[in-house]
Amino acid sequence: MIFASPADFRVALADLCVPDEGAIAAARARQAELTKPAGSLGRLEDLAVFIAGWQGDPRPRIGRARTAIFAGNHGMTVHGVSAFPASVTVQMVANFEAGGAAINALSGAAGLELEVIALDLDTPTADFTIAPAMTEAECLASLNAGAAVVASDLDLLTVGEMGIGNSTAAAALCLRAFGGTAAEWIGPGTGVDAEGIARKTAVVEQARAFHADGPADAFETLRRVGGREIAAIAGAVLHARQLGIPVVLDGFISSAAVAPLAADNVEITDHCIAGHVSAEPGHVRLLARLGLDPLLELGMRLGEGSGGALAVNLIRSALAAHNQMATFAEAQVAAKL
Amino acid sequence: MIFASPADFRVALADLCVPDEGAIAAARARQAELTKPAGSLGRLEDLAVFIAGWQGDPRPRIGRARTAIFAGNHGMTVHGVSAFPASVTVQMVANFEAGGAAINALSGAAGLELEVIALDLDTPTADFTIAPAMTEAECLASLNAGAAVVASDLDLLTVGEMGIGNSTAAAALCLRAFGGTAAEWIGPGTGVDAEGIARKTAVVEQARAFHADGPADAFETLRRVGGREIAAIAGAVLHARQLGIPVVLDGFISSAAVAPLAADNVEITDHCIAGHVSAEPGHVRLLARLGLDPLLELGMRLGEGSGGALAVNLIRSALAAHNQMATFAEAQVAAKL
Repeated sequence: MIFASPADFRVALADLCVPDEGAIAAARARQAELTKPAGSLGRLEDLAVFIAGWQGDPRPRIGRARTAIFAGNHGMTVHGVSAFPASVTVQMVANFEAGGAAINALSGAAGLELEVIALDLDTPTADFTIAPAMTEAECLASLNAGAAVVASDLDLLTVGEMGIGNSTAAAALCLRAFGGTAAEWIGPGTGVDAEGIARKTAVVEQARAFHADGPADAFETLRRVGGREIAAIAGAVLHARQLGIPVVLDGFISSAAVAPLAADNVEITDHCIAGHVSAEPGHVRLLARLGLDPLLELGMRLGEGSGGALAVNLIRSALAAHNQMATFAEAQVAAKL
Repeated sequence: MIFASPADFRVALADLCVPDEGAIAAARARQAELTKPAGSLGRLEDLAVFIAGWQGDPRPRIGRARTAIFAGNHGMTVHGVSAFPASVTVQMVANFEAGGAAINALSGAAGLELEVIALDLDTPTADFTIAPAMTEAECLASLNAGAAVVASDLDLLTVGEMGIGNSTAAAALCLRAFGGTAAEWIGPGTGVDAEGIARKTAVVEQARAFHADGPADAFETLRRVGGREIAAIAGAVLHARQLGIPVVLDGFISSAAVAPLAADNVEITDHCIAGHVSAEPGHVRLLARLGLDPLLELGMRLGEGSGGALAVNLIRSALAAHNQMATFAEAQVAAKL
């Protein structure tokens, strides 16, 4: 187990590694010499330098990269917070395993290994309006299930999720981590109507009130108002940081999994890239709080890691340009007047 | 020759084909049955339906796809409108041919054939502040050089350009096609300073005044204030439309090549995708006038087809999801409550 106790998790979050400044400087110097006007590849240049820093290599590469989808079920779905029945979680896991979901196609197109981790789907979390969603042991097991997907030889990790009801849990996490009103963090999720949004808002308000006096550190927030798949993403992101592996986040729920960690240590997102900003209204606000500028904005709201997988294509292109382009000297091209 | 005379070009532009409504309806119906909440893949769904319409196939594919980079030199560079010497155009063409430029890396990463077409680089166009940039024969030859890259078996075409001075020509085209002030269409290009922008603005104003009384249809606008690589892009886009082949535009200059055509027939962009919006300030305004919503916004300003090539990765991903995903029935996943 990576995190043998809640204390292990807290220590890891308090003591985050930093990227390799030498590799960053060397990568920036290389970008300045490539045959293009300075800065003209925009964010592609920043991506190459970012990956260089975390890989500690001025000529970084993405060989082995993985997308991990975590699935969990949520007790609060009894309150009618989703447009789909809770049985869809296990059905979609079967779909992932059979290769029929969007993430199968998108991770294939991005050259990503796909790992599907179903977390006790027959035992939903407790209804967090009346109890903590998870026991300490359940939360710790979920964190470790996430950490376990981070093979030490990965060049990049992307994370995704499936869990009917989890946009409600994500809103509860954001509210507890960053404050504001429940309505600011609630959206249609998979597609509820105005009445469904009202139910989601009521559930999130009840959860806030129930847990108001409980400890509010990252572990406790994940345990009280998160979910198994959400805690697993948090564990994966934190363990990737321990190993210096850059992470591409997906949408509202995977970003919300990091929110309680960021509330405790704002530097947790330094090794993270926001793959996209989704159509879920709270995601824009959440990314701003996490200090992340999304690569894509395509009106997506699926989860599964779908937006993260798309972004990997851009990162691969950024590294192709960084590594393959000729310098002004090599190509005998005249520099600026 | 595809366009034997200016009249051929004008007839082609006046008589544009439309996409296959049957294929569009069938592709939309398929999207509604795939295992995801309706609409949750956002613009990926629209891209799949768009390509289906133009390919006339509800299950469209990108097998053979090409990026064509056209290069030309500009007489107006004598006025100091660029941060780089005009000799860079031919040097960069050599770089393209040797595989050392950004577009080599990016088209490779996107699975695109790369074709480089250098258009009479030793004969710059005339200085368009005191004469039409091209004769009728020169403009026609450029249009046909563009049309010639559109192999009939292409599933997708992307276009790019290289030409020191051509952001000034692009601004002149936009001004003549869509009006406004010269300053609204002028930007730093490859990186000129405030004095350079003032010189660009003066040159574009002079060109407007000189050609004010000349015919303002698409052919004459391309001929008077365009350039060889710009007319070639216009010819490629129009001939792709004749063949029903979808086109991905790149940045400010490739979009500006279409501006005079759109001023004559607004439907010319119906088979076009804006790959990205560049950092050149006029590009946002130009895309709005062309009715195009860009796929990417990454602060790029390189040209060469670089943003278009990146967008192809997204289109491939959109088609992978469209073609590979299971339906609710196939996967035995419950539909919405």
